[in-house]
Amino acid sequence: MTTRQTLDFLLHDWLQVEALCARERFAEHSRETFDAVLDTCERLAREKFAPFNRLVDTEEPRFDGERVHLPQATHDALRAYAASGMLAASQDAAWGGLQLPCVVEKAGNAFFSQACISMGAYAMLTTGNARLLLAHGTPRQQQVFAAREFAGDWFGTMCLSEPQAGSSLGDIATRATPDGEGFADDPLGPRYRLVGHKMWISGGEHELTPNIVHLVLAKIPGADGKLVPGVKGISLFIVPKWKVDADGELTGERNDVALAGLNHKLGYRGTTNTLLNFGERGGAIGYRVGAPGEGLACMFHMMNEARIGVGLGATMLAAAGYEASLAYARERTQGRAVGSTGKDAASPPARLIEHADVRRMLLAQKAIVEGGLALALYCARLVDEQQSGAPEAAAEAGLLLEMLTPVAKSWPSEWGLEANSLAIQVLGGYGYTRDFPVEQHWRDNRLNMIHEGTHGIQGLDLLGRKAVMQGGQGLKLLAHRIDATLTRALGEPRFAEHANALARALQRLGAATRAAWATSDPVRALANATPYLQAFGHTVLAWLWLDVGLAALRQAAGTPATAGRLAALDYFMRYELPKTDAWLRVVEARDTTCLDVPEDAF
Amino acid sequence: MTTRQTLDFLLHDWLQVEALCARERFAEHSRETFDAVLDTCERLAREKFAPFNRLVDTEEPRFDGERVHLPQATHDALRAYAASGMLAASQDAAWGGLQLPCVVEKAGNAFFSQACISMGAYAMLTTGNARLLLAHGTPRQQQVFAAREFAGDWFGTMCLSEPQAGSSLGDIATRATPDGEGFADDPLGPRYRLVGHKMWISGGEHELTPNIVHLVLAKIPGADGKLVPGVKGISLFIVPKWKVDADGELTGERNDVALAGLNHKLGYRGTTNTLLNFGERGGAIGYRVGAPGEGLACMFHMMNEARIGVGLGATMLAAAGYEASLAYARERTQGRAVGSTGKDAASPPARLIEHADVRRMLLAQKAIVEGGLALALYCARLVDEQQSGAPEAAAEAGLLLEMLTPVAKSWPSEWGLEANSLAIQVLGGYGYTRDFPVEQHWRDNRLNMIHEGTHGIQGLDLLGRKAVMQGGQGLKLLAHRIDATLTRALGEPRFAEHANALARALQRLGAATRAAWATSDPVRALANATPYLQAFGHTVLAWLWLDVGLAALRQAAGTPATAGRLAALDYFMRYELPKTDAWLRVVEARDTTCLDVPEDAF
Repeated sequence: MTTRQTLDFLLHDWLQVEALCARERFAEHSRETFDAVLDTCERLAREKFAPFNRLVDTEEPRFDGERVHLPQATHDALRAYAASGMLAASQDAAWGGLQLPCVVEKAGNAFFSQACISMGAYAMLTTGNARLLLAHGTPRQQQVFAAREFAGDWFGTMCLSEPQAGSSLGDIATRATPDGEGFADDPLGPRYRLVGHKMWISGGEHELTPNIVHLVLAKIPGADGKLVPGVKGISLFIVPKWKVDADGELTGERNDVALAGLNHKLGYRGTTNTLLNFGERGGAIGYRVGAPGEGLACMFHMMNEARIGVGLGATMLAAAGYEASLAYARERTQGRAVGSTGKDAASPPARLIEHADVRRMLLAQKAIVEGGLALALYCARLVDEQQSGAPEAAAEAGLLLEMLTPVAKSWPSEWGLEANSLAIQVLGGYGYTRDFPVEQHWRDNRLNMIHEGTHGIQGLDLLGRKAVMQGGQGLKLLAHRIDATLTRALGEPRFAEHANALARALQRLGAATRAAWATSDPVRALANATPYLQAFGHTVLAWLWLDVGLAALRQAAGTPATAGRLAALDYFMRYELPKTDAWLRVVEARDTTCLDVPEDAF
Repeated sequence: MTTRQTLDFLLHDWLQVEALCARERFAEHSRETFDAVLDTCERLAREKFAPFNRLVDTEEPRFDGERVHLPQATHDALRAYAASGMLAASQDAAWGGLQLPCVVEKAGNAFFSQACISMGAYAMLTTGNARLLLAHGTPRQQQVFAAREFAGDWFGTMCLSEPQAGSSLGDIATRATPDGEGFADDPLGPRYRLVGHKMWISGGEHELTPNIVHLVLAKIPGADGKLVPGVKGISLFIVPKWKVDADGELTGERNDVALAGLNHKLGYRGTTNTLLNFGERGGAIGYRVGAPGEGLACMFHMMNEARIGVGLGATMLAAAGYEASLAYARERTQGRAVGSTGKDAASPPARLIEHADVRRMLLAQKAIVEGGLALALYCARLVDEQQSGAPEAAAEAGLLLEMLTPVAKSWPSEWGLEANSLAIQVLGGYGYTRDFPVEQHWRDNRLNMIHEGTHGIQGLDLLGRKAVMQGGQGLKLLAHRIDATLTRALGEPRFAEHANALARALQRLGAATRAAWATSDPVRALANATPYLQAFGHTVLAWLWLDVGLAALRQAAGTPATAGRLAALDYFMRYELPKTDAWLRVVEARDTTCLDVPEDAF
């Protein structure tokens, strides 16, 4: 199936997104407008992004001492993206937005991630930046910065990490001090001077737009001149690359933000990634967003959607690899498939897709790709429910989203990477060369387990926070949703095997959660947070696949699309879900094998 | 533990290799000479290979239209390697060899694979090539070609694959026709003219040595001018890059072998990899080795050792990543470890190694690296037994080696890659940059599941051939060896848990093997050969780890080295071995989910 076919099925036959059009916010929309958005995204991705995916890998961003140069294709692609209106796709019409549901916005963006994820990153960052300002900025900050970002006039960044502080944002050392006596009266917001270093800043320097809007986390020193330890001391600031006047017009003067270096990455090379120095010449002008000390809370407001976006990107890289390896396997011949009477060397060679193990590698990819898409769209639909649903449903969606976000980010990052490795394997030696696209997908995808919260951080978030928040209400809600699917599945003889397997996995997951926390000692409870994350992810995916399978069964039975979805469901239940036992074993036992190793014994 | 400490322990405390010195072939050797070899290899690898690992990745082989250029460092490193005598390390003294046991030779070569695997590849290919000639060539072929290769004067290649035929060698189309009337009387062997294309030829073109000895598989047409289908028609030929006279002196005339192109790879870039055209100008001169039609049999004579070598290489790449990530985790600080009372933001940051999940990622790498080394050395020791043991023991070793070779090749290729991914993860964002070595290890290692028989091919070999050869004798022998370890382990209370787990896994593996073949239909039996390979591999590794653990326990208890080995054993038994259940499930069920998918449903 093509990505478009899968998206259409998931959006309409599974998630029934057209029903959203009954809500006031989406009243202007219909299946037709949704389709038109997907059509546009698919076409733009095909014409402006996909043809240049290798080019932006080969021609890395280059700094000539003054400017960072990107291929012309990147300029063209992002200009076309901005012109499509997708930067403001889900925003109010008042902001030039299309008022699309989040779930449709994500579906549209899926095409760009599949075509060239590293060019798409500039747009995702810009949208995220602007939306954060809509949530927490002043009206003037929104008009000056967010509006220009939604229009694609300026691009944005997120400046969180520092060379010494990545996962541990509480340790950031960038200082923001009030800029003079009247600092509080600047029309653009309380004005500070920032001094510090920011690392891993994607889109941190380029000439794509005449200005760059950095959103920067920094600490305001206390009266004693010291920084407050931990995340509570963190505030958020807008730091434009070029200074602007009160109306946001460029003054022609450079702000005190300098490129200290480009990072040279394994993949994702189409996105400039930088070390930025703030305040080499006295302090970069920054305008505070939100209250002092609320910086991380403001940033986390966008975290769920950002993490869904990372997961969706990982899934679409897997989709790109699946498509390439499937096309190759349909054409390329090699050897003969095992037959009941052995192999006949004189017979014509078989196509790769006729070999059992190649079929396994393709079906595994399909299960990952379409499962990952289902996960991302389900979560995006929860965002819509949270934002435009009735109060009770909105609250429930919010709770479930909190629960699922670590999975939405981590599962595709881990398994999408595995899918990309399988795509290489299908192509064999050719897959290992740069003449085929699959090795780049694999390199690009390796980032996704690292950025936006590492895999380990996701595990701690899930088992340490989400599984126990509100006395376990999130977990109960999830179990309730899974039960609803199980009830329907048990009515289908075709699915009895799968429903029983999922019910058992869910029960064991609950037991493992309780066992982990049985002694209330976080050290032992969280010693195996990552295996827990893996088991949790596989259980969620098994549930979504079963639910998707039910929708497929409602479709015309016997079509290739339905047969494919049911096969992928079968695969996931039979080959993947059983892996959860091994992961949960150590969680249940509160196994401390790894904790107990003396450090000099490694 | 350093690689050297692990090698010393495995060679002496576990495998007792010094006992080999009682055999006539190794009578000149002792612990001291073995140590001296390892000392030399370790030093050469540190001085001549490791410093240039990134350089050979960055400065890929370059073709100027006439010559292929490699960095000077590659010339220097390989000259030093040749001067050390390691090219002939295990050969008779008459060939300038050191008459080292295979197990010590492999241990010595481990350092080079860890330091710079892609430079080491030229040497491995040359040794393998020359040894094949010792086994199957005429005395003159041995003197002219093999002797020069052992001395490092000429390097060698293995030319098997063709653009259309990789896994399926039976489909090669390179033709070898007798070169004139007196073709049979050439002093260098029956002389043919070869015409065809050979793909993926490592070391296929370079200026490292004044000649290159290609060993080429080709088919001799029948009387009807047609090639025999399948592998039975394949013969083996020596095709020198530059022509030689009867004494092997260069005539100054180029043979008809031309570089058609360099392959541009994801990793392993220090090894030239080529497409070669044979016979563009009428036919390349080639001298047949062995009988017509025996080409693949000759080649396979070297296959076990080559596959052990691939597995060892994959393990040593994992070792390189482990070492780098361990050093980083000991130094780099980030956040605070989870404590019983939560985290204190005002406390100094913890080093990475204090975090539970980082410890898990380090211990997993240690279990893979040291387990992979144990596997490679165990198999190498079997080679020694096969070659210099008493007849019965030699036969038994040969049978066990047949059984274990697919595992020795595939297990480190799959899990060494996973170890390299964990190393990246430990370094986080830094690990994703080219400023640190771990991303290159991961790229380099991705090749190992592809070359020398893909992962899928190894699975078919194991379940389709090895598990059923001689009525299952190989499997029985392995089970017998595992039982011997279990018996000893059951006497150690510390190991009772592990012995029981392994006994259960072994039993299930046997049952799955029988279940797979229960219907005698190879289509269904082999439908899940790769999951079988994975389960088999993990079971073998669990056995070896338990056996290594027993040796560790005999050592001074309470030392860091012993504590580390026991922890890695615990890790493998508790976190890894349980994964076999999920893999065997589909084997036992003869699951045809993947086989059954209609092709248009993907």
